[in-house]
Amino acid sequence: MKTVAVIASNSFTGSHFVDALLENTKAKVIGISRSPEYNSIFLPYAYKKKKSGRFEFHQLDINKNLREMLSLLDREEPEAIINLAAQGEVQHSWDNPADWFQTNAVGIVNLTNALKDRKYIKHYIHTSTPEVYGSCEGGVKENYNYQPSTPYAASKAAGDIFMYALYKTHNFPLTLTRSTNVYGMHQQLYRIIPRTIIYLKMGKKIQLHGGGIAKKAYIHVRDAADGVMKILEAKNPSELYHFSPNNEGYAIRDIVKMICEKMDRDFEKCTETVPERKGQDAKYHIDSTKARKELGWQPKIKLEDGIEEMINWVDDCWDEIKKQPHEYIHKPSL
Amino acid sequence: MKTVAVIASNSFTGSHFVDALLENTKAKVIGISRSPEYNSIFLPYAYKKKKSGRFEFHQLDINKNLREMLSLLDREEPEAIINLAAQGEVQHSWDNPADWFQTNAVGIVNLTNALKDRKYIKHYIHTSTPEVYGSCEGGVKENYNYQPSTPYAASKAAGDIFMYALYKTHNFPLTLTRSTNVYGMHQQLYRIIPRTIIYLKMGKKIQLHGGGIAKKAYIHVRDAADGVMKILEAKNPSELYHFSPNNEGYAIRDIVKMICEKMDRDFEKCTETVPERKGQDAKYHIDSTKARKELGWQPKIKLEDGIEEMINWVDDCWDEIKKQPHEYIHKPSL
Repeated sequence: MKTVAVIASNSFTGSHFVDALLENTKAKVIGISRSPEYNSIFLPYAYKKKKSGRFEFHQLDINKNLREMLSLLDREEPEAIINLAAQGEVQHSWDNPADWFQTNAVGIVNLTNALKDRKYIKHYIHTSTPEVYGSCEGGVKENYNYQPSTPYAASKAAGDIFMYALYKTHNFPLTLTRSTNVYGMHQQLYRIIPRTIIYLKMGKKIQLHGGGIAKKAYIHVRDAADGVMKILEAKNPSELYHFSPNNEGYAIRDIVKMICEKMDRDFEKCTETVPERKGQDAKYHIDSTKARKELGWQPKIKLEDGIEEMINWVDDCWDEIKKQPHEYIHKPSL
Repeated sequence: MKTVAVIASNSFTGSHFVDALLENTKAKVIGISRSPEYNSIFLPYAYKKKKSGRFEFHQLDINKNLREMLSLLDREEPEAIINLAAQGEVQHSWDNPADWFQTNAVGIVNLTNALKDRKYIKHYIHTSTPEVYGSCEGGVKENYNYQPSTPYAASKAAGDIFMYALYKTHNFPLTLTRSTNVYGMHQQLYRIIPRTIIYLKMGKKIQLHGGGIAKKAYIHVRDAADGVMKILEAKNPSELYHFSPNNEGYAIRDIVKMICEKMDRDFEKCTETVPERKGQDAKYHIDSTKARKELGWQPKIKLEDGIEEMINWVDDCWDEIKKQPHEYIHKPSL
């Protein structure tokens, strides 16, 4: 591969995919995001970018700058495009669902419908989510039905089914990925693991919605990136893979407890129970046997180790992190 | 029921639903469409409207006039809303898929997200399509997976899954209906049955895409309207019903043959084979046992009789019909 483009390279997972591409390939990596490139201390790929000289950033928005984005892609002719662009916060999607549909459905429809005719693209890898299934138990496989519970999840499903139609009718080289909760250093600070670490350091109470009994399975962002590398290496990757630890995961309260123990804080004193969120799914238990068999993928980083790494990261960057907003800030699609 | 609103009352099926409501209920019927109300000769409900005085028309567009539409609904407080608003033509949806997503996903998301908080609504009945399943065989039931093959079908699925999330999380009183091909008098002239009749009368060749082997099952529009009446009468209707003749239906070429015979024309001379359309599904074979059992519904009008009625309708209205456009004309969403 000569060139790979990562759309939403500023995003937590996207920035780690850039890092993995600079580490594992010799390709030129084109990063595209709607915000300016983040400050180096928030970018996992900062060092490799400098060392390799193979990364180039472009500030473009799939809703507002689609024409410019397509011109850039036509100039660079990337063999692979990895797309993570999405309005991504579940709970706030109830406030204005159409805004989530604008990016995750209409934006994706416009982009991929244009890309389907670009012959230079050999792989189009798109980050989906198990939330398109709604709550699911027992380790569901890649043929499970769409039954999302929130506007965010419904909008992601909407984009997915359009791309699937392109795959069926136009041989669009689609691979959708659905990973359980991805975590790791540089994650958005409002996500459960970094927020818990930050709140404990600041002495703020951690709110457990519905007592924090919803179960989530986690995979480390470098394991997720490894999955994408394996899709790029595969000769004929499938149109959909699950990435998961193949277990039910942990109740959110148990994750918070684990962090409290590691940081030597009292769980009962540091947390409070608040009402459950609308459409909160009880669990997402997806089966990743297909990725393990077809791609030879498996997760390598233990949750405990990943969390320790994050506590160290927050400690190391505390002067910067404490100045950042710790709550979700919505940037409208249009 | 005091008041019922029909959104897309100008549409072929919508206008027949208005007719059935005026016939079978004592409710005031509010019709809403984005175009001005059609000329009486194209409206099945024209006579009953005049006789009953219970129909009122408002020209409003779900994309452009949502606020006014909600004000109207809040004034009238309909216990039931029947919504057929959609960008509806399959093949043209490849030209500009995002336009189909604008109405069928974003427009529906905006409307139903607002309606979910209106306590006066006891029934919200929404016309979906079996095309959300893609090609399906063997009589699929209401739990079948979304695998649409065209932008039209994907955009309808996108709206459906959002409404399903509202139903799951907010007890939104949703009933989705998926009917096999609906046909009958007053149908859009570019649809296969009226177009065939018109082309035969004009001596124009009928194009059979892919030889016309795709199979479609048909139900008469008055049988479809009867299904909606039965949902309105049901105490606790389900969130999804199929309406179908419970058979595989007919190859399009056989429908055209049937019409040729009834009109005494030579099938071979009147038709020509052209390439198949992108994403044309081989068949939609859906099972309507649930509607038959739970609602006591069954189709009553035989295809042969329905087609004869349409031939007579085209003959009777020929002076007007021959002046109309016989091809699909796209009206953009925005």
